[in-house]
Amino acid sequence: MKKAAVIMGSDSDMPVVLGAVKQLRAFEIPHEVRVMSAHRTPYDVEQFAKNAIDNGFGVIIAAAGKAAHLAGVIAAYTTLPVVGLPIKSSTMDGLDSLLSIVQMPSGVPVATVAIGGAQNAAILAAQILAVSDESLTAKLKEFKDQMAEKIRAKDKDVREELENI
Amino acid sequence: MKKAAVIMGSDSDMPVVLGAVKQLRAFEIPHEVRVMSAHRTPYDVEQFAKNAIDNGFGVIIAAAGKAAHLAGVIAAYTTLPVVGLPIKSSTMDGLDSLLSIVQMPSGVPVATVAIGGAQNAAILAAQILAVSDESLTAKLKEFKDQMAEKIRAKDKDVREELENI
Amino acid sequence: MKKAAVIMGSDSDMPVVLGAVKQLRAFEIPHEVRVMSAHRTPYDVEQFAKNAIDNGFGVIIAAAGKAAHLAGVIAAYTTLPVVGLPIKSSTMDGLDSLLSIVQMPSGVPVATVAIGGAQNAAILAAQILAVSDESLTAKLKEFKDQMAEKIRAKDKDVREELENI
Amino acid sequence: MKKAAVIMGSDSDMPVVLGAVKQLRAFEIPHEVRVMSAHRTPYDVEQFAKNAIDNGFGVIIAAAGKAAHLAGVIAAYTTLPVVGLPIKSSTMDGLDSLLSIVQMPSGVPVATVAIGGAQNAAILAAQILAVSDESLTAKLKEFKDQMAEKIRAKDKDVREELENI
Amino acid sequence: MKKAAVIMGSDSDMPVVLGAVKQLRAFEIPHEVRVMSAHRTPYDVEQFAKNAIDNGFGVIIAAAGKAAHLAGVIAAYTTLPVVGLPIKSSTMDGLDSLLSIVQMPSGVPVATVAIGGAQNAAILAAQILAVSDESLTAKLKEFKDQMAEKIRAKDKDVREELENI
Amino acid sequence: MKKAAVIMGSDSDMPVVLGAVKQLRAFEIPHEVRVMSAHRTPYDVEQFAKNAIDNGFGVIIAAAGKAAHLAGVIAAYTTLPVVGLPIKSSTMDGLDSLLSIVQMPSGVPVATVAIGGAQNAAILAAQILAVSDESLTAKLKEFKDQMAEKIRAKDKDVREELENI
Amino acid sequence: MKKAAVIMGSDSDMPVVLGAVKQLRAFEIPHEVRVMSAHRTPYDVEQFAKNAIDNGFGVIIAAAGKAAHLAGVIAAYTTLPVVGLPIKSSTMDGLDSLLSIVQMPSGVPVATVAIGGAQNAAILAAQILAVSDESLTAKLKEFKDQMAEKIRAKDKDVREELENI
Amino acid sequence: MKKAAVIMGSDSDMPVVLGAVKQLRAFEIPHEVRVMSAHRTPYDVEQFAKNAIDNGFGVIIAAAGKAAHLAGVIAAYTTLPVVGLPIKSSTMDGLDSLLSIVQMPSGVPVATVAIGGAQNAAILAAQILAVSDESLTAKLKEFKDQMAEKIRAKDKDVREELENI
Repeated sequence: MKKAAVIMGSDSDMPVVLGAVKQLRAFEIPHEVRVMSAHRTPYDVEQFAKNAIDNGFGVIIAAAGKAAHLAGVIAAYTTLPVVGLPIKSSTMDGLDSLLSIVQMPSGVPVATVAIGGAQNAAILAAQILAVSDESLTAKLKEFKDQMAEKIRAKDKDVREELENI
Repeated sequence: MKKAAVIMGSDSDMPVVLGAVKQLRAFEIPHEVRVMSAHRTPYDVEQFAKNAIDNGFGVIIAAAGKAAHLAGVIAAYTTLPVVGLPIKSSTMDGLDSLLSIVQMPSGVPVATVAIGGAQNAAILAAQILAVSDESLTAKLKEFKDQMAEKIRAKDKDVREELENI
Repeated sequence: MKKAAVIMGSDSDMPVVLGAVKQLRAFEIPHEVRVMSAHRTPYDVEQFAKNAIDNGFGVIIAAAGKAAHLAGVIAAYTTLPVVGLPIKSSTMDGLDSLLSIVQMPSGVPVATVAIGGAQNAAILAAQILAVSDESLTAKLKEFKDQMAEKIRAKDKDVREELENI
Repeated sequence: MKKAAVIMGSDSDMPVVLGAVKQLRAFEIPHEVRVMSAHRTPYDVEQFAKNAIDNGFGVIIAAAGKAAHLAGVIAAYTTLPVVGLPIKSSTMDGLDSLLSIVQMPSGVPVATVAIGGAQNAAILAAQILAVSDESLTAKLKEFKDQMAEKIRAKDKDVREELENI
Repeated sequence: MKKAAVIMGSDSDMPVVLGAVKQLRAFEIPHEVRVMSAHRTPYDVEQFAKNAIDNGFGVIIAAAGKAAHLAGVIAAYTTLPVVGLPIKSSTMDGLDSLLSIVQMPSGVPVATVAIGGAQNAAILAAQILAVSDESLTAKLKEFKDQMAEKIRAKDKDVREELENI
Repeated sequence: MKKAAVIMGSDSDMPVVLGAVKQLRAFEIPHEVRVMSAHRTPYDVEQFAKNAIDNGFGVIIAAAGKAAHLAGVIAAYTTLPVVGLPIKSSTMDGLDSLLSIVQMPSGVPVATVAIGGAQNAAILAAQILAVSDESLTAKLKEFKDQMAEKIRAKDKDVREELENI
Repeated sequence: MKKAAVIMGSDSDMPVVLGAVKQLRAFEIPHEVRVMSAHRTPYDVEQFAKNAIDNGFGVIIAAAGKAAHLAGVIAAYTTLPVVGLPIKSSTMDGLDSLLSIVQMPSGVPVATVAIGGAQNAAILAAQILAVSDESLTAKLKEFKDQMAEKIRAKDKDVREELENI
Repeated sequence: MKKAAVIMGSDSDMPVVLGAVKQLRAFEIPHEVRVMSAHRTPYDVEQFAKNAIDNGFGVIIAAAGKAAHLAGVIAAYTTLPVVGLPIKSSTMDGLDSLLSIVQMPSGVPVATVAIGGAQNAAILAAQILAVSDESLTAKLKEFKDQMAEKIRAKDKDVREELENI
């Protein structure tokens, strides 16, 4: 299977990004995690993106906050699908990051997920790799079924709980 | 190659969505275009999404405006990657559609592109299918090179034009 | 009297939704509370909505956060009035949820109340059921009178308090 | 059947509000249309709202733009369900009207529909009246079926059209 | 001197509104403080506003949060200048309240101050009463001079402080 | 009677500001109209504001767009009430102007009216001057009555019109 | 004198950017105008930015719309001051572009001007170059004086005009 | 070398502004720090700005919150480049301050940095002074290299850390 990359623009994004790493591990998807900044180490980002296909990557998750250029800069240097994960910082409630990632100009898309949606970034990466991988598709279906069961269990719990209030 | 689906919530979205269809054609990606509404024909959407993998689809583009639920509802019924294309309507400048598509809860991601970013929706779909398709990757690289050449030509044009103002 | 349903998209919405349940109890309106997700248990939502009229419901309250599709999906499968209750999550201050619920396309309305307005969702449900129920109308009038009395008591308290500052 | 009222804050709202009137006529719901302003004729609004139940109304649609207080003021004086219809004016893209209508404080809800969603305001009013009216419920089901058929017809049209491009 | 009224829509607004009361006291402006709600005690608000001129008021401060209709409703029933004070509640960061107060339709203005700007509401009320009151104008000038002196003192403090860091 | 000043930051604001001038004329309030810019002629603004009381002004209307500092700068140099009129420019739909005018820091209020609310700026100025002028109060009451009559006439028109559709 | 660079992300930005070019010409500042895209010709942008100091540039104006990464990417590769000029596109009224340019992370600033503020971008570039250039400072002072004179002329015009209405 | 000025509108901005002061110290740029308010000590601001060039300043950083007029007012009185630093206050998440600073009208630019971006304000000031100062340019390059090294060290840390989770 091709690898997933998880790039974050700052190590302060780690607490959020960890949600993506854990989900990739749960799906047993080979992956690498990197801290690289579009603004502070632009050359490193360029080199990583340019060589990502040759280095065996199939999808790249890019997490950044504020004027989040990381996903767009990576997408500029590769034809791999880039999943953009907006990170909420101390102002603007994540809207700056969301718009900086999703509003890409024609020709260079970024597959954007919700603000702080780290688990979803990993699931989307898995869905992308699963297009040509039936066993990963099976894992995704199982994951979906388990989610449904959890909701059904919560449904039961809540109803029981309310009877006792 | 697996097929791409292009679903729009209303035929009034067609002028925007056509940009995606044309780009899929340019990449010679087999595809089907449908008008189906999460709110007006929910059962049709459900059936389409449930059977999409069996029917040979590898990726689904879902375009909708206002409280755009189409992409999320499709994603609820399939493990295929779903590309969400927000459509601007007469109020709120597309923000309602963008947030309704991108802010999906944990477990069910939608790969969101820019408001009105139809061409990018198709390019992202191509990038997803290209993960396991080297000839499509080659087409994407050629497309990227041509974009760069167009910008360089415009750069030359603008500089010449300014000399004459 | 017909029943009210209270559906929440996640059990994490329970602390807010409880405000609706308590108000329904205060009005002695028969009701059922469920946890069902438009994205994680879409089939359950569909079945519930389709059969709601036959199962004796007269109104459905649907509470959800982020890209809140629950109310719209329910409204797609029933002609009952659906009251949408937007829940604030950790980003975007509830605006994503509000727009995802209120901006419904023509043909499928959702009766939206304020972000976090759980008590109001229940009062609106009561007002809807009261259209053909004079005793419930009487309870609503009494509730309105009591509210006014509470404000008048607070008015007196505040004036006395200020005299002593 | 109880009557629906359609109140607009200014006659300049008429082009939008007409969508509600036409839909009420299509459902054969008895109704009255009024121009009354929460700010310019507050006493008339108060009198109308206070006497609405005695005058045979079952639901009130209130349409207004900008700092749209009409729906809230009506709701202050009656226990009838009030449907709030935000009207977009020349600035703020309808957001001011939406928030002024939907963000009602606890105790006095307004059932808010989309900005400019006049048809949906009428459908919601019909759904409310239909809770105790089986023949109106039947009309709503027929309306829902016809909507679905229209989408399916558009689906066929678009596919045929695309074959010829 | 004519009196100032300070009306708040809920006693929960008291901690903010107190800033206005203290400033009115500092200017020795006669005033009354009331809790009255446009939605819960609309008739009381109407009576207060209608009789405000006859009862010796010269200006009315109205503080409210969320869909803040209080200032507009008062302005509907009097020709006195109404100062609108938006209160931030738990969602939307005060934007809902600001827009509900400031975006009044033609004919019925509200003099809006900053979200939570209680002191400014009182200063504005004082400025309005001072138009025909030279001694109050003198107090306002003194207040302005003292503010300037405070800033100059802070300027000195900060510069000294920085020398020691 | 004291005079009203109408200051606009740019002559391009004239089409909007004219609405204020006409209303002041209708109320027969003596007034002066000026084009002065907080950023381009700051010294002129300062001189005007400093001497406004001595020059017989009782209230100042300040209209500006974008980062609208005009009202705030005038308020910094006078204790007269300053009415801020936000003007919508080609971006941000007037929100930049509204926030730049209304969100004044403690100590220096601006009485802000709706974006583009020129007529309301004049009415508010009239209400302020009327606090100590009974004949102006009478004119404001007459204006209010006429507004109500116009709405009632429109109410009649709309109902007749609808009978013929 | 060091040169100014004017970089635009797309030739479609030319109508706006021309305002900057004309102002640089008016100040007789040597400059080069280029079309280069952070996403479509990232390598060209990198090379330009890296060599800008050696090529005699003293300041760089970067204009782009939507998820405008151009200014930030240039700032990543040079220590020259970069002036960011947000361009309004067909959705989001320029807010996406503004936030993508201004909200830069610590360490890599962009000197952002107003949405569409092309003339101001050039004036700011001139102010930056003028820090060490007294003759350019003199031109800026003259420009400032002329602006003031224009406003004063408009002030006279408007007052005369109003006398005749 | 010319001096940098750091002006804040209120001493409550000090905790944020300190980030700018520290960075100026780190670059060994001579500077003065002042508390001056566009609204409370407008004359002091005017005098400072008018004489800034003669007093040896080359660049001015202006920090303010809410309706932040400080930077614009300074820019009105000098041709020096003015760096605007928006400060987040208790409402509106800094958006009011950002728009009040960045959306300046044609003719009077402010070089705006991110909300709370104090360090960036100082770096931008340094970049401006460095246009004619090679040793400061060298310091900026060294700063940029150190930033890159820190990111690379964090990259290594994060990867090691993840191996142990």
